[in-house]
Order: sequence, then C-alpha cells, then structure tokens
Amino acid sequence: MSDELNAIGYPKLVVKTPVPSDIDISQQIVKEVGLLPIAEVGKQLGLTDEEVIPWGIAKAKVTLSAREARKDVPNGNYVVVTGINPTPLGEGKSTTTIGLAQALGAVLGKKTVACIRQPSQGPTFGIKGGAAGGGYSQVVPMEEFNLHLTGDIHAITAANNLLAAAIDTRMFHEASQSDEALFRRLCPAGKPLSPVLKRRFDKLGIDISSRSLEELTVEEKGRFARLDFDKDTITWNRVLDTCDRHLRQVEIGVGPAEKVKPRENPSQSIQHNRSAGFDITVASEVMAVLALARDLKDLREKLGAMVVGYSKAGEPITADDLGCGGALTVLMKDAIMPTLMQTVERTPVLVHAGPFANIATGNSSVVADEIALKLVGPDGFCVTEAGFGADIGMEKFFNIKCRYSGLKPKAAVIVATIRALKMHGGGPPVTAGKPLQKEYTEENVELLAKGCANLQKHIENAKKFGVNVVVGVNKFKTDTDAEIQVVKKAAMDAGAFDAVLSNHWALGGEGAADLAKAVEKACQANDESNFKFLYDLNLSIKEKMEIISKEIYGADGVDYSDLANKQIEQYEKSGFGRFPICVAKTQYSFSCDPAAKGVPTGHRITVREIRSCAGAGFVYPICGDIMTIPGLPTRPGFMDVDIDTETGDVIGLF
Amino acid sequence: MSDELNAIGYPKLVVKTPVPSDIDISQQIVKEVGLLPIAEVGKQLGLTDEEVIPWGIAKAKVTLSAREARKDVPNGNYVVVTGINPTPLGEGKSTTTIGLAQALGAVLGKKTVACIRQPSQGPTFGIKGGAAGGGYSQVVPMEEFNLHLTGDIHAITAANNLLAAAIDTRMFHEASQSDEALFRRLCPAGKPLSPVLKRRFDKLGIDISSRSLEELTVEEKGRFARLDFDKDTITWNRVLDTCDRHLRQVEIGVGPAEKVKPRENPSQSIQHNRSAGFDITVASEVMAVLALARDLKDLREKLGAMVVGYSKAGEPITADDLGCGGALTVLMKDAIMPTLMQTVERTPVLVHAGPFANIATGNSSVVADEIALKLVGPDGFCVTEAGFGADIGMEKFFNIKCRYSGLKPKAAVIVATIRALKMHGGGPPVTAGKPLQKEYTEENVELLAKGCANLQKHIENAKKFGVNVVVGVNKFKTDTDAEIQVVKKAAMDAGAFDAVLSNHWALGGEGAADLAKAVEKACQANDESNFKFLYDLNLSIKEKMEIISKEIYGADGVDYSDLANKQIEQYEKSGFGRFPICVAKTQYSFSCDPAAKGVPTGHRITVREIRSCAGAGFVYPICGDIMTIPGLPTRPGFMDVDIDTETGDVIGLF
Repeated sequence: MSDELNAIGYPKLVVKTPVPSDIDISQQIVKEVGLLPIAEVGKQLGLTDEEVIPWGIAKAKVTLSAREARKDVPNGNYVVVTGINPTPLGEGKSTTTIGLAQALGAVLGKKTVACIRQPSQGPTFGIKGGAAGGGYSQVVPMEEFNLHLTGDIHAITAANNLLAAAIDTRMFHEASQSDEALFRRLCPAGKPLSPVLKRRFDKLGIDISSRSLEELTVEEKGRFARLDFDKDTITWNRVLDTCDRHLRQVEIGVGPAEKVKPRENPSQSIQHNRSAGFDITVASEVMAVLALARDLKDLREKLGAMVVGYSKAGEPITADDLGCGGALTVLMKDAIMPTLMQTVERTPVLVHAGPFANIATGNSSVVADEIALKLVGPDGFCVTEAGFGADIGMEKFFNIKCRYSGLKPKAAVIVATIRALKMHGGGPPVTAGKPLQKEYTEENVELLAKGCANLQKHIENAKKFGVNVVVGVNKFKTDTDAEIQVVKKAAMDAGAFDAVLSNHWALGGEGAADLAKAVEKACQANDESNFKFLYDLNLSIKEKMEIISKEIYGADGVDYSDLANKQIEQYEKSGFGRFPICVAKTQYSFSCDPAAKGVPTGHRITVREIRSCAGAGFVYPICGDIMTIPGLPTRPGFMDVDIDTETGDVIGLF
Repeated sequence: MSDELNAIGYPKLVVKTPVPSDIDISQQIVKEVGLLPIAEVGKQLGLTDEEVIPWGIAKAKVTLSAREARKDVPNGNYVVVTGINPTPLGEGKSTTTIGLAQALGAVLGKKTVACIRQPSQGPTFGIKGGAAGGGYSQVVPMEEFNLHLTGDIHAITAANNLLAAAIDTRMFHEASQSDEALFRRLCPAGKPLSPVLKRRFDKLGIDISSRSLEELTVEEKGRFARLDFDKDTITWNRVLDTCDRHLRQVEIGVGPAEKVKPRENPSQSIQHNRSAGFDITVASEVMAVLALARDLKDLREKLGAMVVGYSKAGEPITADDLGCGGALTVLMKDAIMPTLMQTVERTPVLVHAGPFANIATGNSSVVADEIALKLVGPDGFCVTEAGFGADIGMEKFFNIKCRYSGLKPKAAVIVATIRALKMHGGGPPVTAGKPLQKEYTEENVELLAKGCANLQKHIENAKKFGVNVVVGVNKFKTDTDAEIQVVKKAAMDAGAFDAVLSNHWALGGEGAADLAKAVEKACQANDESNFKFLYDLNLSIKEKMEIISKEIYGADGVDYSDLANKQIEQYEKSGFGRFPICVAKTQYSFSCDPAAKGVPTGHRITVREIRSCAGAGFVYPICGDIMTIPGLPTRPGFMDVDIDTETGDVIGLF
C-alpha cells in the first residue's frame, strides 16, 4: 500500500508489472489495501445512512429518495462511453469507463460516479467471463460484482416467469371454464376488488362505481374474464440467467395433466413454431423496463403495460390484463434501486440494469444516471457506458434513454484500439487460442489508416446529436508512436474534440488522467442546448427506421419482410407507432453483415420482423439473426471456477 | 406503543382485537413501533459487527465464523416444533414456533433464536401465501421475509440450472466429438489443470502427478473426457421458484440447432418419458444440500457429489464429473450463511434453507441451528421447526438432520388444534370458501376424543427418540374448556411431559408464556443421553424403511415395485445404501392414503420408486404421488398483490 494519498484522500494505487489477472488484482486490493466500508463510499457523495441500504458484501442499494432530496441540485456533467464496432480483439469500453471515472475522481479530485450495467451471470460461467472492467480499472470485489450482485437479475427472472406462468395458466383455465365460472372465480362474492382487477374494468370502460358486480351483464362479465388469447401471437418467453441452448425452444405442458397443449411462438422460429422458448434473463422486457423506468410509479405502469400477446380479436393483452402488474412491481421493488460499489481506487460506482444491446437499449438505468448526476453536482461527472458499438449503444443512448430521461449528455467518449482498427482496415480474421497475426503485433500504419474510417464515421454520428466527442485510444503494449499519431489525426480530421491515449488497464486512474482532462475540457466547451435527437417520435415507424439506417448506418435504405410489414401495421394501430426504435442488428458492422468491417457503403438494412416492448416503450426491428440465450462450449468457464474452502476465496473467475 | 418494557428491554407488544391481517400487523409494527436495526438484533446475541453482514431491508447474514468463534460455548436447549398430521384447517406450526420463541425471549427473558425455513416464493403468489408465521407471532417485515429474502433460493435456482445446462451441453458436445477432441478441449495444452478437473483424474485413478497430459493413453483420455450418459437415467431437472404447471414436463432442445434430441426422464412419468421437467426450486437437491451442509468445505463436497444420472456402463455421474462442483459452490457461497431477522417482539430469528418436506428433509439448516445453539448458550433456546406432521418432519429431523449435525434435541413440541383433531376423529371434509360445519365450530367432545389418537401416536413416536414431548394446543376462539381438557388428558395419557393451551396468534409471546414455561421445564427434565436414532445406518435400505414404516407409520409392512427393487439394488451397489431414508409420502396421514385420518392400522406402505440424493446424503422412497412443481388456480394470489407507489407499501400479500 502506498503512503502517498490520492486526490480523494486514500492511499494511492500501487500497480504491479506484469498486470495480474482481474481476480488476483481484485483479491489483492481487498486483502492488502482493503475496501472502503460501503457506507463510506456513499458518504463521499454526501449520501446519508438512510439513503444507503447495505446489501451484502461490499455492496449497498441507494434509495430513490436520494434523488428526490437533491432535486434542486444542478446536474453534473453527463458523459457516455461508447466505442467503434466491436471486434474479437476487444476494445475495452467497460475498462475505459471505470478507468476514466477513477481518473476523474481519484486523480483529478472531481466527484465522479461510474454508471455501469449489471452483467448477466450466465456468460460468467461460459465463454465471456465477468464484466467488472479489467486490470487496474475495475469494480471490486469482482466476484461480488459478477455473481448475484444485489439480486436484481434474479428478481427479473422471478417477475418474468410469474408472468409466463400466468399466461399459460390463464389459457389453461379459460379452455375449461365458462365466462360465468371464470368471472365468479376472478371476482368472488364478498371479496373486495383488488387494484389490478379495477384497472381492467377501467380499461374496458365497464363502470363498476355505481353497480355491484352481480349487476354486470353476461357480455360485460365475459369481456372482463376471458382474455381469449390467440396462441399464435404470444411472444412472452420464460427466462433463466443461464447459458442453456437446449431451452431456446421447448415444448411445454407435455405432461398428461396439462390439457391445453403447447402454445405456438412464431417469434422463435418460423420452422419450429409449435413451441415456447427461454431467453437469458437480461433479454427480458422486464430488464428493459428496469433500465428505462423513472420511479416506482413509472415502474408499476410500465410493467403493467407489457404486452404478452393478442386476443383472437387482435387486441393487445397486457400484464395488467392478466392481473399481474402489481405482483411484478412488488417483485421488482428493490431492483429499482441501483447498487453502489467501488473501484480499485475507492471511487463510487452505480451498477444498475443490464438490458441486451440488440433487442433492448444496452444501457444501464435512467435511475442510476439521474441519481449520479445529482450526487456529483454541477462540477462532477457521471460516466455512463453504452453497450456494443456507437452505431447501436450510443444511438440508443441518445434517442431512447436520454429521450425518456430528459437528461442532456455533454460528451461522448469513443473507445478504440489500434488492433481493432486494423481489423476494420482489412486485417486478417483472428482465431481464439491461436497466436495473433503480425498485422496486429507489428506496426502497420497503412492497415490502421484504412480502419480509422470506422472510427471517423462513429465520430460524425455522435456529432449529429450535438455533443463533443473525445476519442480514447485504449493502449496495448504493441502500439507504436506512429500508429497512435495516425489515430489521433484521423479522429481530429473527423471532428473529434480531442483524441487521447489511455493506459488505465495497466496503471489505473493515472493511466487515464490525460483522457479525463480532455473529457473535462470537452464538457466545459459543450453547449448542452445543442443536444438533439435524430428523429421525431411522431414520425412513422418506417420513417424513423429510415433515418437511423441512413444517418447512422450509412445504408441506402430499408427493406421489410411481409411479416414485418404486417407487424408494423398492427403496431401503428395499437398505438405503438409513437415509440422510439431500438434496432436489433449485428454489433460488428454498420451494416447487417457482421463481416463487413470498416464503413460499408451501398448496403441496405433488411427488417425480418419487428417486435414491440410496449411496457418498456420501444419497438425493435430485427435485422439478422438474434440469439437470445447463449450456449456453453465444450469447456465452459465454470470448469475453472472453484472455492478455497479454507479462506473462502473464489478462484478461476475471469 | 406501550410504555412498559418486555423482558429484553423493548416496549411491550400492544395487540389489537380483532387481530388484523398479517401484512397489516407487520406494517403497523414497522411504522408504529419500529424495527430494531438488524445489527442490534445481532447484538442481543453477542454478535459482533464483523459477524453480521447487513443484507437488504431489515435483514443480515450471519457468518459461519460466528459459530467457530464460540465453539467452546456449551449448546443451548434444542427444541423442535412439529405437529399432528396436517389438515385443511391448519395447525399453526410456524406460528407456534415464532410465538414460542417470542415467549421464551421477550416474556421469560431467555436468549432464544427461532430457526425457520425460507419459504418458496412461488406459492406466495399462488394459493398458499407467505410463511412468516401469523397474527402477533410473525417475522417482520413479512414482505421482506416472503420475497427474495437474501437471495438464497435464487442462488439455488442459478446453481441447479447451471448443472442442468452442463448436462445437456456435455451430451451435445460428446455426441459430435471424438474422445481425442473432447480431451483436447477439456484440457487445452498450456492451460493449468483446474481443481475440479484434477478431482476427476483422482476419481478415475489416473495418475497425472508424474506424467504430462500428453502422455496419457488414448483409453485414459477417453475415460476422462467422455461421460457417456445413458440418457434414460438422467434425473436432474431444471428448477424455477414459480408455480408453473406447464413446466412439469417439457421437451427441450426442439430448436433446429440442438442436434442432440430431448433426453428421457423416467422419474417424471412412465407414460411420457421423452421429456425433461422443471421442479420448484425448493425441491432441488441443491436445497437439500444447503439444509444439511456443515460448512463451506462440506458444501463443496456435497455439491460435487450430487449424482445427475448414470453412464451407459452404470457408473454414477456427478456434478464434479461435469466440472461443475466448484462453480456451484461459488454460486452458493453466500447462501450458506443464515439470514437474521426479527419477530414482532424484536427477538432474533434465523431463516435458512427450505427443502421440500417429502422428497427432502423439510427442516431448516443444520448451520442455522448450530449457530443459534452457540449464540444462546447453555441457558438459552433454539426453537426449530420441522415441516409436515411429526411422522415425516420430526422423524427426518431426528434421523437425518440430527444424525448429520450430531446435535441432541431436548424436547419436541407437538402442535395440534382442536378443529384439526376433530377431523382426525372423523369430522366431515371441509371445502375452501364454504362455511365450516358445526362439528368444528361447536363443542363436540366425542369427535375430538376419537381424533386425539392421532396426537397420541405422534407423542409415542417422539418418545421413541428419547426426548420429552410438550403438546401445544394452538387456540381457536371456538375451543371450549371441556374440549381443551380432553386434549390435555389424551396427551398426558400418551406420555407427554405437558400439554398447554397457547394463544400466541392473538397475543404474541404473552399468549405462549405457559407453553414456554412447560418447554423450559421439559428441557430441564430431559436427559440428553437418552436421545437415540430409530435405525442404524448400516442396515440395508429395506431394513431401514421397514423400521420407519412399522414404528412411525404403524404399517404392517412395505411393498416395492419392480422399479424400486431395481433401484435399491443399484443404490446399494453405488454405496448409497448407507444413507438415511427420507420417505416421500403424503403428510395428511400416517399411511399412504391422504384420506386415512386418525391412526390407520393394517395398512402397508407401497414404494413406487426410490431416488437418491447422493450429494445431500439420503435416498428417498416415493410412496404415492409427489408433485414437485405446483400450478396456479384461476385466481392466483398475485391478483391481490400491488404496491402503493406513493409510500412504497406492499399491499395484498398474505
């Protein structure tokens, strides 16, 4: 441990060379330096004991009242971290987000909160590993971050699957009961009507204020009690936070007692449609709702409004129609509070929500960012991360997340690595487990210069929203000075505010000090009033899709399948046409072809189908194959994981 | 709030008449009286700040080091609460457990911990409702108790399903890869061997200490890498903590990419065996393991030893063979710590584990009881509850739980109600929603006297284990003095140490003061050295089953299906014959017929099949239909549940 103190009064980070594994760094910090008690992390931000609820080992939840209590405090500087189109070489967005926050906080002494997503536990045991950042820019303890956290994803699993059970149960009971019997059971005589059942009467326009339930007409009772699912239209899957490919499609209810036979699920597969399916939990709409809900009331409304399918008459059926919206909210009442943790340099981190970046927004929660911006105040920084490349994560951050929150970002950091840019310039494909080709390990200015086009297009895109752009070049040891200059020049040519080399992985906050200074200047120079969305919500779904495709993806236009056309028609009719668009597309390219690196031109976007998240509040056109529950390889990551039963130390997590 | 203080220095409980709903009482206590900060609850027991990890709203985990630190403290008085065979009228074991602990603690001033099970969340939204106790004998806040708690059940879901995914993934990859390819992927060159893979080499007796992996023979590599599942033998189900009947049997992997087709699962149904299934999470063997594990090391060994199926050569395949035991333990590393909460009278409660009472032990954890007994010390009390009637929950408490823990109970409290005894005496069946027949609401000494035979048989059974028995008559307002005398006399005639009326539901601890005094005396009068098990583990499975059936159930003998005979043979061969027996049988009768009330005689026990929990350490003969995932009714409990979005109050939970 260093005797010297950092800018916030804690012992300066001491780094080792070579950089140890992530879990070794995390455990070394915990044992040798020690963690700050989580309440103390809150106190850095002025949080009171009542506003911080300790929740397990080195974690706490921050109450939403912390935001209300500071509603008159001007917001801090809002910075989004995004990246070029990902490559198998890795770019380091999470690590940069944490490193930048460490630099702003522990080096520059600015109140700073990093806002990041909770990782799905499934991939932690599969191929991907954890997501706490990396090297000396990570959230600690990394095993506490990567596993369970404070149970939000588990709560989503519970909520999602309660709703799924409610759907099949309802179909099961409707199949065997008369309208009258259903009504009598749903509204038993003498039992006061519960709030969620009142909502359904209100929705149907059945006046029960002046009549007793017995006085309702047979037709009214039937309308209330029979949801009358068209089972071909049910889109609600079950979920598990496990990589389990054999659950992608399942036939449910094959036991002898389940008289209502499996429901069709056209959204899973056209070929095999007599089945239901499972997604990984983070792909649930409940997760998308958590990421966008403003408060408990908004959460209640959004969860209740989730559409799970349509009636035979073509009416959308919601969670509230199933009597489930209240219970779902109760299951999610703690999950709405972000989790407070700390970096290796004891700066605060809010971890909250982790929606898929294709079928959802890929951004952490509105609530966490709002709390962070109030806590850091006008001179401080909220550094928040957007998933995938800037064509997806950043576009959705601006057009969806900021639209719902009303928050105005001041700067976008676009992360790139020289190795990844070389791949965009036409470098050879890489194979896991094989040594990297020399194009990536030796200087190659030409390949790099070509690949910078990808970065430049993302810079231009970000500027369309009216924010300053800082390029963060995430340093690898093979990078040469000449190469670094090429990237910097390309970035500045494309209109970046600055482009800075950053070595936070090896050095922690000190390694990102230059990046932090550039970000600070970019925020100071930015005029928030320039911030604008790319499209107006009042445009049609197709008009909005056209704008994103042309402006962001550089496509010539958009093509729709017959199914997509039919769905768009239905959605516009159901009032979902007013939602923002959340494109589900490959993250590896601006186009729909993952192999098309750099900046493809002359391409068209093909919408195979389009789905709605009426609760979360967006529609998502599906352009290409989207996998919503991963599988496990022959040798999954879990084979490395074990526990030292003497010390309790986790080993092998990565 | 009362100005008077109770025996532990807090304001005396003030009760309302009529007794409000459970959630109203819970919220009234929280708002009007206030909860004790959870660290203060720990301090009542001398727990240090390091031994209590706050974990959410009014909850904390107690570290296992709290037990180690007090290993020289003599244990407290160990009291198990059990009951007559349950009836639809309810007996109130949980409520009595909490009420008795409140009486011992807040009224008599004895250090007392109530140890109870964590309820499954599924039934909370279905028919059953919560399980925090009831009336003025409950754990508060009841919504925090009933929902999520500290995530243990969610951790079990995650662990169970990781193992399930590992099974199907392995079969999938084994189907398409040569032994050599499998081995190369499982043990990639240059990667150090992980602990769990080392275990498999050890188990197979393949010496790798003096040879490099490349030097292994083709045969050795194949033995290591190919588990070679006989898919007809896989018994490992997936789980969810949701009542979802349509998951009882599912066909998995029906998507076009899953080349290995659904596995058979003979344990689910003979008729439909080309399927897999889901159980509710609390039915998972992982839960059974949690309830019986002694410490982290034992947890690691038990989880790794869980058998998921057999190879084509008939060898059991374990979680460790799949490389999964370490990861499962890491997922369960927090779950091994019990959760500390408080009663309405601020006395401490440890909530931990909640295994099914039929296919598992139906008792809370060994760890929680051990910690409690050390914390209360020799003058204090650990009151722990056993599920179902005494023929199941108590028998398993003694023969399985106490055998694994080595703990010696001093007294058994058998809970009965006059109404339920009348049903055992031949009272008419009751129907939910219809008014109770007059047999139950008016004095009927004759019916009651006949029904007392059920209570008497349980008393005699308990005494076979060498403990003193106190009967707790859980008071209902319709009970008459004459009736109460009948029960007391019957109890004493059967050898009870005492029989006491208890009114804790309406009055809290004060209502159970007489019961508490009787329990205290029973413990003082008990000679621990009299405690004995009913059978020796070295007997064969059939011999042990015979003893339980004759001694506890009063049966004439046991019959086995061909399947059961075959399974017993296999288990004895696999070394599982040495395990204690955990009978899965109806809780409603001593016999296998749920309708046979009172004390049936001349009956035989029929074992349809027998399964093993080789990790948890028992075999369970299945006698009758066992349902391992409930369904939802037409009007599930979730329809009442909602949230007041202004106050955050949960409403409608019961």
